[in-house]
Amino acid sequence: MNTNNIKTKNAINPTRTENYPEWYLEVIKAADLAENSPVRGSMVIRPWGYGIWENIRNILDIMFKDTGHENAYFPLLIPISFLEKEAEHVEGFAKECAVVTHHRLKGDGSGKLIPDGKLEEAFVIRPTSETIIGHMFAKWCKSYRDLPILINQWANVMRWEMRTRMFLRTSEFLWQEGHTVHATESEAMTETLKMLDVYENFAQNYLAIPVIKGEKTKNERFPGAVNTYTIEAMMQDGKALQSGTSHFLGQNFSKAQEIKYFSANEKEEYAWTTSWGVSTRLIGGLIMTHSDDDGLVLPPKIAPAHVIIMPIWKTSDEEKQVLNYVEALTKDIRQLSFCDIKIIVKIDKRDIRGGEKVWQSIKKGLPIRLEIGPRDIASDNLLVARRDKDPKDKSSMSRFDFIQNLPSILEEMQNNLFNKALQFRNKHIVKINTLEALKTYFSGDESKVCGFALCHYNDCDEAANHPLMSELKITIRCIPLNGENEEGCCLFTGKPSLKRVIIAKSY
Amino acid sequence: MNTNNIKTKNAINPTRTENYPEWYLEVIKAADLAENSPVRGSMVIRPWGYGIWENIRNILDIMFKDTGHENAYFPLLIPISFLEKEAEHVEGFAKECAVVTHHRLKGDGSGKLIPDGKLEEAFVIRPTSETIIGHMFAKWCKSYRDLPILINQWANVMRWEMRTRMFLRTSEFLWQEGHTVHATESEAMTETLKMLDVYENFAQNYLAIPVIKGEKTKNERFPGAVNTYTIEAMMQDGKALQSGTSHFLGQNFSKAQEIKYFSANEKEEYAWTTSWGVSTRLIGGLIMTHSDDDGLVLPPKIAPAHVIIMPIWKTSDEEKQVLNYVEALTKDIRQLSFCDIKIIVKIDKRDIRGGEKVWQSIKKGLPIRLEIGPRDIASDNLLVARRDKDPKDKSSMSRFDFIQNLPSILEEMQNNLFNKALQFRNKHIVKINTLEALKTYFSGDESKVCGFALCHYNDCDEAANHPLMSELKITIRCIPLNGENEEGCCLFTGKPSLKRVIIAKSY
Repeated sequence: MNTNNIKTKNAINPTRTENYPEWYLEVIKAADLAENSPVRGSMVIRPWGYGIWENIRNILDIMFKDTGHENAYFPLLIPISFLEKEAEHVEGFAKECAVVTHHRLKGDGSGKLIPDGKLEEAFVIRPTSETIIGHMFAKWCKSYRDLPILINQWANVMRWEMRTRMFLRTSEFLWQEGHTVHATESEAMTETLKMLDVYENFAQNYLAIPVIKGEKTKNERFPGAVNTYTIEAMMQDGKALQSGTSHFLGQNFSKAQEIKYFSANEKEEYAWTTSWGVSTRLIGGLIMTHSDDDGLVLPPKIAPAHVIIMPIWKTSDEEKQVLNYVEALTKDIRQLSFCDIKIIVKIDKRDIRGGEKVWQSIKKGLPIRLEIGPRDIASDNLLVARRDKDPKDKSSMSRFDFIQNLPSILEEMQNNLFNKALQFRNKHIVKINTLEALKTYFSGDESKVCGFALCHYNDCDEAANHPLMSELKITIRCIPLNGENEEGCCLFTGKPSLKRVIIAKSY
Repeated sequence: MNTNNIKTKNAINPTRTENYPEWYLEVIKAADLAENSPVRGSMVIRPWGYGIWENIRNILDIMFKDTGHENAYFPLLIPISFLEKEAEHVEGFAKECAVVTHHRLKGDGSGKLIPDGKLEEAFVIRPTSETIIGHMFAKWCKSYRDLPILINQWANVMRWEMRTRMFLRTSEFLWQEGHTVHATESEAMTETLKMLDVYENFAQNYLAIPVIKGEKTKNERFPGAVNTYTIEAMMQDGKALQSGTSHFLGQNFSKAQEIKYFSANEKEEYAWTTSWGVSTRLIGGLIMTHSDDDGLVLPPKIAPAHVIIMPIWKTSDEEKQVLNYVEALTKDIRQLSFCDIKIIVKIDKRDIRGGEKVWQSIKKGLPIRLEIGPRDIASDNLLVARRDKDPKDKSSMSRFDFIQNLPSILEEMQNNLFNKALQFRNKHIVKINTLEALKTYFSGDESKVCGFALCHYNDCDEAANHPLMSELKITIRCIPLNGENEEGCCLFTGKPSLKRVIIAKSY
């Protein structure tokens, strides 16, 4: 990237090349997306960040309903004994969960409060809800006529993570978790892959994040799953972000929880279950895919607002004139939509310096910016600034043309962002055939942009535990579903491999 | 109510007159709204119940945004030390809160899991979020230019209630909590009352529940509030349900939490705050206001679906014909809306007995039911059953007329439900002027429908602690805002009173 002195100063300090992890946190701060809270590992999601989450939720919710799912709500607390039922599941979650042990507080005599009223059985705050939802499924599922059960829950969950990072890994996070029950193995597998397709569609067509669908290798599976599928995205530092997962749970949970049904020929059978989820982590992916050294860049389809208008005046006569014009313009814009999304316009009338306003809107990733003063009104001509262009590069457009073209401009911006991210990702995928080459590819200082290495791999313990994995801080991201069949030898063990996997550093 | 033998059997057993509290639980069960969970006091909200909550949330959310509020999200956990800051607040909540003391589980050697990893400072699961949100407000609020701050949060909260009752009082419940910061006392008071108006509008015009806006007396206030305002509704057993509250917090929380700002003339001032909320309790109110001895009755504006179609056929030729007709009809219905709400239609094709289907839809409160078979198609005439009429009372209507009239039928049903509830409530409000009369009014067996007593009351400890209150299980519900000014003497103390209060039994 450009580091010579002619380049104007950037709004975000440090820049991506200077320090990518710091840049990420600064973008979040500059855009007022979220901030740290007094509860370690939990963040406060501020209105601009929550607006993005609301859009994610609303769009996905329609997709889930269109595929036959209904929302429901299950308890936040899970009795400890429930976790014990599925051996791998408890192994995966027991080490990092918030435990509720008391049901009141009392004074300790010195003005401090201490826990009181010890519970007979302790609870954990749900790290995920397979066990509690499965318990209910066992009651609801009696006959093949009750199947499939297709449920989704929007909820907060908690995992007591040691190392947290806003949006990407927080102790508490918001997510959706789909849980379904089916009569047959093939129906459950179809569901698992159908929801993976929903995630792919959403990530690519709304978040403008190109993703690779794939199957996880054994030791990367969800605890208790027979198979885990993932969508993997590449961030601008070349690292992978697991952006959504869909689990085929087989009969593991139905056997642990007695989810059984009578088939059409009166035989009692264990059901087949799935679960799938995405979380506020997607916002982290959004930031790291599109943002630049001036702050957040938002794909228009997911932006909480599309157009910001900054009225400019000096005298009170001008004020009246400008505000009238802006209000009429706003009314016209509010009639518009693009890709079935209503165009949202905001007016920033705050009494602060114009330059500060402009830069705030840039740092927040507002797609379109209009500064409107008496001169623009006189000429009925607008200076249109786009977030995907240089801040100083404004195109002049008649008001009529602006209204005519706004929907297609937003659609074009959406497509440009996806294509740019796709090009970046494709440029950073390489086939690697030797351990030596793998080592070279993933070595170097922190700022080096590596990417995805396509390698032959045989999914066994010997390969999974190869010392190079931890040495290079790399993991097997997935076995791409659309990968070519190609015979080869595992890089780590020399054992046979039929397909390449993706190896990368990851979040 | 009719108890003679000619009356056909009701779908809900017991009926309202037989046992109102049991009837309430049976309606919830019969409508698949919710059920008890393995976590004491927490319920599972099933899709039909959650669909109602989604409508409540979506409609209120628009109202909140229209009044300038933005959504955000704050941590689930609150450090214990935060609760200690506001003396009355901690007093109100410390006795019933879930306490998180550990951050992992370990095996105890016998295969059981026990809490491990004791936290340095324990947390409570938020019973309400004034303290944690106030902590953030103190950071965000620096200058008068930052004010007002108008935030809302949709969240789950937890209060470890001893006696729980589905929807009305559960340990965990879903709600929204508005939290705002203002520069002046009058702005904060205006906000408090504005949101009370929003709640009144929502309750009356969407839930079809008539409510009385009022101010709470001292000992009924929110812990830490200067003043609490409420909307009080009357259930069909005459009891009051506090359905939403709006709190003027004065400077109590801003002083406890240092929420300060520099005014236009550079003086540091404590801010003024408010908070306001409604919860899943509203669903309890909805059930108890409108439902009858056949199950749930839903005001169309809040129903998750408006029309249910049951196709009927015998032969496979008929099946094709009927399903074609039904699908075309469904398409037409989906184009319709009433009161700006899209009409939602469901088709019930399940292979179960027709009578069972019909009664399920009645018990779930579906507003409009159509059973369509070959004969109806031949005549192009529909038999339309309305949930607010007798199950056997179907009106015949041409398909054309049905499509023309459906929106106005739904609107009429909405209005009828409100008017019916209003008449019931007004019939059960009486002015009472002596303690003797009060005693008579609220005495009698459990099944007696009492109502609201308008009485003179002087808000002092002596009156609040009068033994008749607990003897009759009555409380002061509110001082109605629209009550007449009328001088009188407090029923309990003889002290002067300028206005009557509402006294009632309550949930």
